[in-house]
Amino acid sequence: MTELERILHKIEPTRSDWKIKAGKRLDALAIPQGSLGSIAALAEKLVCISETMTPQFPRKEIFVMAGDHGITEEGVSLFPKEVTVEMIGNFLQGGAGINAFAQNAGAVVHIVDMGVDADLEEIYGKGNVIHRKIGYGAKNFIKEPAMTREEAIRSLKAGIGLAMDAKSRGVDLIATGDMGIGNTTPCTAIFAVLSSRDVKEITGCGTGLDKEAVRHKAALIQRGIDLHCPNPNDPIDILSKLGGFEIGGIAGLILGAAYCHIPVLVDGFISTAGALLASALAPASRDYMIAAHRSDEKAHYAMLDHLKLSPLLSLELRLGEGTGAALAMSLVDAAAAMLQHMLTFEEANVHAAK
Amino acid sequence: MTELERILHKIEPTRSDWKIKAGKRLDALAIPQGSLGSIAALAEKLVCISETMTPQFPRKEIFVMAGDHGITEEGVSLFPKEVTVEMIGNFLQGGAGINAFAQNAGAVVHIVDMGVDADLEEIYGKGNVIHRKIGYGAKNFIKEPAMTREEAIRSLKAGIGLAMDAKSRGVDLIATGDMGIGNTTPCTAIFAVLSSRDVKEITGCGTGLDKEAVRHKAALIQRGIDLHCPNPNDPIDILSKLGGFEIGGIAGLILGAAYCHIPVLVDGFISTAGALLASALAPASRDYMIAAHRSDEKAHYAMLDHLKLSPLLSLELRLGEGTGAALAMSLVDAAAAMLQHMLTFEEANVHAAK
Repeated sequence: MTELERILHKIEPTRSDWKIKAGKRLDALAIPQGSLGSIAALAEKLVCISETMTPQFPRKEIFVMAGDHGITEEGVSLFPKEVTVEMIGNFLQGGAGINAFAQNAGAVVHIVDMGVDADLEEIYGKGNVIHRKIGYGAKNFIKEPAMTREEAIRSLKAGIGLAMDAKSRGVDLIATGDMGIGNTTPCTAIFAVLSSRDVKEITGCGTGLDKEAVRHKAALIQRGIDLHCPNPNDPIDILSKLGGFEIGGIAGLILGAAYCHIPVLVDGFISTAGALLASALAPASRDYMIAAHRSDEKAHYAMLDHLKLSPLLSLELRLGEGTGAALAMSLVDAAAAMLQHMLTFEEANVHAAK
Repeated sequence: MTELERILHKIEPTRSDWKIKAGKRLDALAIPQGSLGSIAALAEKLVCISETMTPQFPRKEIFVMAGDHGITEEGVSLFPKEVTVEMIGNFLQGGAGINAFAQNAGAVVHIVDMGVDADLEEIYGKGNVIHRKIGYGAKNFIKEPAMTREEAIRSLKAGIGLAMDAKSRGVDLIATGDMGIGNTTPCTAIFAVLSSRDVKEITGCGTGLDKEAVRHKAALIQRGIDLHCPNPNDPIDILSKLGGFEIGGIAGLILGAAYCHIPVLVDGFISTAGALLASALAPASRDYMIAAHRSDEKAHYAMLDHLKLSPLLSLELRLGEGTGAALAMSLVDAAAAMLQHMLTFEEANVHAAK
């Protein structure tokens, strides 16, 4: 058994006794039965993951996993590839969406170089970006595999390591984020293979492509799938042939969070592609995932549905970076506050329903 | 012109020059066009209301308007009428949903006695509940009008006064909430009259009525409308014949917020009935309303649609108290953070789209 296999093997479903205990308490609260909807369901999940009736999440960290994509040379994005590096500069100066929302949520933002096609330490100095670089951008998958199988495994392990490190530092809540011009293309490809869906049906406009460009994008994805014939039952094969370093890193981060019993807020389209890989590698990891939001990218809802996850928010976001996850953090805190502060009919001396 | 008419007359639409200014800034941010969806729309609205490009909302207050309803003697709720008073006790000891979520949002909760059928000062002492009592519960509207026209006007003015007082204390954001066993019944009646909709189509289960009880509730509402024939073009006539003191108070609070240029987060079904009355009395007040969430009560979405408001959250809540409004507060702060921290393509030195 390899080191990765050992970790995957140890990811266990959350325990049903905690689910029963949480359900009993929530049903007894001095409110009409079921009237706190998704917040109550979230509270129950948090109890099961944390294995305490009063979980708290003061230490929140968002990992923005960054990587480039050779497929951008085929014109799959409105933005030039250089924007990956430039946006990392914007993250570091605190001027991006994720900075604004993370500050509002009381969360720390880490930028992780999983596979950016530039030397970020030279550009932005040492210590500002977490260096986990597997390669200088994924390869153009219509010409060759995006990465080797060994690189795919290394990207997963890098993500797992980040979660384990967070655990050792006392982090209570992890959120995923991404930066990588062109990365809706590999994510759509991954979903197509894992779900056996028609590529044309699930290809969306990313940062804002027009109809003709979306058709071109779908055709490229189909060509990549036809060229490499990834094994739909082998997530590492799919990741290596069609994926990206940051997508592998996100999948690993989610797996690591599950392994460490830390709830993980899964951001939008890119992060959910990572979640799909994580779930395929270790189905029990799904118990630790919280779908932050439903993004505006075409197939995102279908992806969430495939994972049987209900998104907390639906705000027509399609920015990535972890912005949706950062916005959902206050709902996690609200669910925790519900468990900590709300009284039952009996405790509050309120008449229950007739 | 009466005092109320003078105030209604002074409620003005937000200014289009601020809308243009906000739109320009939001369009220039270093993100794909439109990729922050509802948060950008919210940011634009906040700029227009506050008339500054960097609005901030450190002082947030939630007003839980409480009142009883004579119609409860016809069996329209699963809960006995006494629960209004008991839940106020729970609010005061910090054990309710609104306490948990308000604390999480950094908001102050005020409980306002608009028309509870008990002497709250005797039960809970002086100074704990804001005393604006118009009467000891609205009357049973299948027998007589819920209140007099003069009482309806007083309930509106009480709400306006609370908003003006909040303004004088430097409050930046107001949220509405409610407590009143039986109050989905008058709110459904108000919406039916204002929208000319079929009562049977819009009557929902409130705190959890079964189908037969919902049919009974709809029949009572229809009887009340047939008995009093309120003038659909006279919101005060509707409020007095079918409403409740807390509903008038909520409508007034919203009108007062609009008058004072304070954004007001409108909670769920009951609060939106108040918003419908406010909008009917002063259409420009709509510009100051932020629909916090879409509740699970049947006709809530139709109400929001009538007001042309898009809810921020959709969490299957049906609790009232202001819980949805409290949960939405972090999105208001996020929209403000977006305006304050995010840089444009030019400021951030990022290449714009090709």
